[in-house]
Amino acid sequence: MLVKSKVKYIQSLGQKKFRQQEGLFIAEGPKLVNDLLTLKNSGITEIFALKEWIEVNKLLISSYKVVAISSIELEKISQLTTPNQVVALVKQFSGNEHFDIHNKITLALDNIQDPGNMGTIIRIADWFGVEQIVCNIQSADIYNPKVIQSTMGSIARVKVVYTDLAEWLSKQKNISIYAAMLDGENVTSINKIKHGIVVIGNESKGISEDVLKLVTKKITIPQKARLNDSYGLGNAESLNAAVATGIILSHLL
Amino acid sequence: MLVKSKVKYIQSLGQKKFRQQEGLFIAEGPKLVNDLLTLKNSGITEIFALKEWIEVNKLLISSYKVVAISSIELEKISQLTTPNQVVALVKQFSGNEHFDIHNKITLALDNIQDPGNMGTIIRIADWFGVEQIVCNIQSADIYNPKVIQSTMGSIARVKVVYTDLAEWLSKQKNISIYAAMLDGENVTSINKIKHGIVVIGNESKGISEDVLKLVTKKITIPQKARLNDSYGLGNAESLNAAVATGIILSHLL
Repeated sequence: MLVKSKVKYIQSLGQKKFRQQEGLFIAEGPKLVNDLLTLKNSGITEIFALKEWIEVNKLLISSYKVVAISSIELEKISQLTTPNQVVALVKQFSGNEHFDIHNKITLALDNIQDPGNMGTIIRIADWFGVEQIVCNIQSADIYNPKVIQSTMGSIARVKVVYTDLAEWLSKQKNISIYAAMLDGENVTSINKIKHGIVVIGNESKGISEDVLKLVTKKITIPQKARLNDSYGLGNAESLNAAVATGIILSHLL
Repeated sequence: MLVKSKVKYIQSLGQKKFRQQEGLFIAEGPKLVNDLLTLKNSGITEIFALKEWIEVNKLLISSYKVVAISSIELEKISQLTTPNQVVALVKQFSGNEHFDIHNKITLALDNIQDPGNMGTIIRIADWFGVEQIVCNIQSADIYNPKVIQSTMGSIARVKVVYTDLAEWLSKQKNISIYAAMLDGENVTSINKIKHGIVVIGNESKGISEDVLKLVTKKITIPQKARLNDSYGLGNAESLNAAVATGIILSHLL
């Protein structure tokens, strides 16, 4: 059973303001919640679930605070169009951006605005084994329910922190900072790397000036001219930011 | 001035049924409409625009049927949240799928469902100079206003046709058919190609059985294991279909 005030509380976490205030986010559905539960430190503070789900996952959730709810209650607290068995409240990642950047690849997102791109980039990072992402504070909120769900569980495996990106980058020593630009070395002929920071810029404005100053290596995804460009039209002006991220990581790693 | 029946007619083209019936689609905004106007055969049948736009583009539109409209009329016929100066009605590409597949790359989409992915894939094709896309008839409708606008003009440079994909593929002789699969040759070590058909599968189901039979070369985007996978969690289960398309084309071309 859920009291009214609890329902309201969970619903309020749909808004960024309340999520930040509480330091929590909402994770829904068996796939995502179970992915989180397999972590040593899942960050889950409370679980609200249908009896069926609780029954199946008894062992996994024995040390958690779990509330059995009805389908009607689930519908009230869910952010999904089609609620799916379980809703968990989860602690946001700590703001501590002093993680180890050596011997690994770190993604740096400079004002990625679109929640869909943000979710897709987290999935790409996960696919390529990138464990950590540093975002400028103006970037889209990864704790937005749409982003969380669109990462399809990758949010459990990729650490994301928000910070002043230019300041953070200026403190990183002895490491190459790569950036995707329109002018730079051809990504298809670049040597593979084992460590470094890869900066992805804003969807329309690219990389901001103060970040650009700190870049040590510019890379480019070359356009391919049409074999038979009878129109003389040229090509698309840009690639989607998530697509560019995928292409760059696939060549660099 | 627009009569009521015309307003209704244009509005009806927001729906697939009427678009198909009329063989038309809607293109909006100076960027997209001007990209179309630079084509030898733009397919534009009618243009509805504010006086300012007409004034600037006088020479470009001299041979077209152009109707000057007010901002209020523009708002009525626009499919955009923020209408932008001009709305054009454009002929859908002909259903003739007998275009030349030799000496070039053709993309084949096997039931891509998400309109966002469809738009992004068209933009990627344009970036890499791929001129033609063959889609299974169950794929998302490229004439959906959201897809058209999200291609950011690339729709003017990439020809897209719908057909029975398996049947069409079975008729293509002396050409390699590549497909992105979970098991296949590593895309990063494959030889670059100058011609061939590249099949991209459905977002969740992958490539359908009847298409799979016709594939001559399976390729894979390898996952990268974490250097320090203390959780033993593995990685993301899949990459977004548009991201996969971008990665594959960047390695093959």
